Amino acid sequence: MPESHPMIGGDGTYSYAKNSYLQREGIKYAKGLIDETIAHKLDIKDLLSNSRSFKIADLGCSVGPNTFICMESVIQAVKHKFQSHGLTEQIPDFQVFFSDHTFNDFNTLFRSLPPERPYFAAGVPGSFHGRLFPESSVHFVHSSHALHWISQVPKEILDKSSPAWNKGRIYYTGAPDEVGKAYAIQFAKDVEIFLDARAKELVVGGMMVLILPGIRNGISHSCAVVNVMLDLLGSCLMDMCKEGLVSEAQVDSFNLPMYVPSPKEMIELVERNGSFKIERMELFDPVPGNEAQILRSGHAWKMHFRAGLEGVFSKHFASETIDELFDRFPNKAAEKLKATSTETTLLFIALKRK
Amino acid sequence: MPESHPMIGGDGTYSYAKNSYLQREGIKYAKGLIDETIAHKLDIKDLLSNSRSFKIADLGCSVGPNTFICMESVIQAVKHKFQSHGLTEQIPDFQVFFSDHTFNDFNTLFRSLPPERPYFAAGVPGSFHGRLFPESSVHFVHSSHALHWISQVPKEILDKSSPAWNKGRIYYTGAPDEVGKAYAIQFAKDVEIFLDARAKELVVGGMMVLILPGIRNGISHSCAVVNVMLDLLGSCLMDMCKEGLVSEAQVDSFNLPMYVPSPKEMIELVERNGSFKIERMELFDPVPGNEAQILRSGHAWKMHFRAGLEGVFSKHFASETIDELFDRFPNKAAEKLKATSTETTLLFIALKRK
Repeated sequence: MPESHPMIGGDGTYSYAKNSYLQREGIKYAKGLIDETIAHKLDIKDLLSNSRSFKIADLGCSVGPNTFICMESVIQAVKHKFQSHGLTEQIPDFQVFFSDHTFNDFNTLFRSLPPERPYFAAGVPGSFHGRLFPESSVHFVHSSHALHWISQVPKEILDKSSPAWNKGRIYYTGAPDEVGKAYAIQFAKDVEIFLDARAKELVVGGMMVLILPGIRNGISHSCAVVNVMLDLLGSCLMDMCKEGLVSEAQVDSFNLPMYVPSPKEMIELVERNGSFKIERMELFDPVPGNEAQILRSGHAWKMHFRAGLEGVFSKHFASETIDELFDRFPNKAAEKLKATSTETTLLFIALKRK
Repeated sequence: MPESHPMIGGDGTYSYAKNSYLQREGIKYAKGLIDETIAHKLDIKDLLSNSRSFKIADLGCSVGPNTFICMESVIQAVKHKFQSHGLTEQIPDFQVFFSDHTFNDFNTLFRSLPPERPYFAAGVPGSFHGRLFPESSVHFVHSSHALHWISQVPKEILDKSSPAWNKGRIYYTGAPDEVGKAYAIQFAKDVEIFLDARAKELVVGGMMVLILPGIRNGISHSCAVVNVMLDLLGSCLMDMCKEGLVSEAQVDSFNLPMYVPSPKEMIELVERNGSFKIERMELFDPVPGNEAQILRSGHAWKMHFRAGLEGVFSKHFASETIDELFDRFPNKAAEKLKATSTETTLLFIALKRK
């Protein structure tokens, strides 16, 4: 079973619903890219030859509202394409499948669905590292800020006798090469399984848009601000360990199950899989220039991380440990952020099922 | 907006999951009827001419486990049909849409899905008194113990100036004819809307199986044990009213939103709608003979009603009132059950989309 890391449900202080600013900014920017992809690359006529409805899946949807914004935007773009081809009469019904892990808070998701939505809604529980839909039953897959979660921490990372043993860290930033390599291999396996599953589920000509944290080709993992901040979160945990607030064994047995790839890595994985044509791939900065000010705030990073990562931490650490960890983080982060580039880069990939 | 009456979620003492014995017995018996319907009436080849997967919807699924048992049983019957026609190679993927009101506990439903299920699962939140799926996107609809819920209590029932004012009762058993007639009209409207929506969603040749409480043609509503028990629940509330434990106004403004039709009524409604052919319709007793012993227990009826009706009561009454009401009920029920026929009849209807 792939591991499950649901975002924090409900709408409390640390909820994902209230703390997904960076994801939302990424989505705003990605909207333009998705619109262009649909306008220029989607073959609407072929797609619907066997179906009266257009089926869209959002994989890793969490609880909203980001997923609602994305899905409406995809639907608008597809409708616009029909209209611009003089096919207004043939605009199909839309069905949206909101999918995330079984322990995602689907009750919150369903209760916050926009009442006036232009689609029929369904929820699909389960891991995207496996099949979720019948054969050839989906026309468009969207997945934002999800594919960077790997299905498990690579085993070598936890093996004291392995050169990839990740002692004293919770992530691969600043770790020996073997650690980063083990993460990269796990990510490659997961993406292969992901692409195989989607290749079966998408109709021929169906499209998939993936948005995930990415780093520039050829730069070190330690140069990406997200990775730097995660390393810093790890170092706060080490401080607590030195002060006896958490045991060394507990810290050593914990690692974050995520990986930030480069465009080059993604191209290789898609080409090796062979089922998809890459229609577009680019790195972009969702909060460029002055707007990035929020990324200089230790508190903002704390809220961002806590909403997304508490699920992972809470499986391993007591809630007091987590509170203390996130209380310590902002000051240390603020200090570091003064001297670090806060460019955050997201990877946009549009694929077509061959 | 149609009213929503979710069953009690979770797995506590009064949960629907733990107190749906009568529904389960009905389902066991209905399994044979569904198997025969699929074997003799379903045209598998035509149905799948435009789809590589077979899509099934369970409307009013609640939280399980009944819905899981039903869906596996439908799938087995369809698979068996393919096999018996020498079409084993062409058995399609199955997709099951578990549908219920938005406030149904989908988290519990999803977390209790059988791990080794022979289908892809999805949840669909919304009222079946309206559209839930895209046009021509479903092959088989199942709905058990759900269609007897009406979308709202008829307005006349609450109108002091109307001959249908239902003073001193919470249901139409033992009420003036006008009350029963108002309920029947509301039920007819709801079934019309239900059939219209399903007619759009089902492919031509697609089938629908409905199982709901029913009474024999030509007998009085007061002769059905379910109706008698509901009347008794009302009389317990009247007793509490007389003792000043609950106000008269509060009781007078409360009525149960459900209706138990006869086969004759259902035939008329389906024929008036015109989109469906009736392939089979019959009344059956889910717990015949000795097994009906449980239906002579006031406590069993209490648990049965509380799991199914608490949602409705809790929107109107304080929790202490509900506790007191259900505490009073078993003794009064046991007394009545000594002298009442406990035959419970369910109505089975198999329809094919013309």
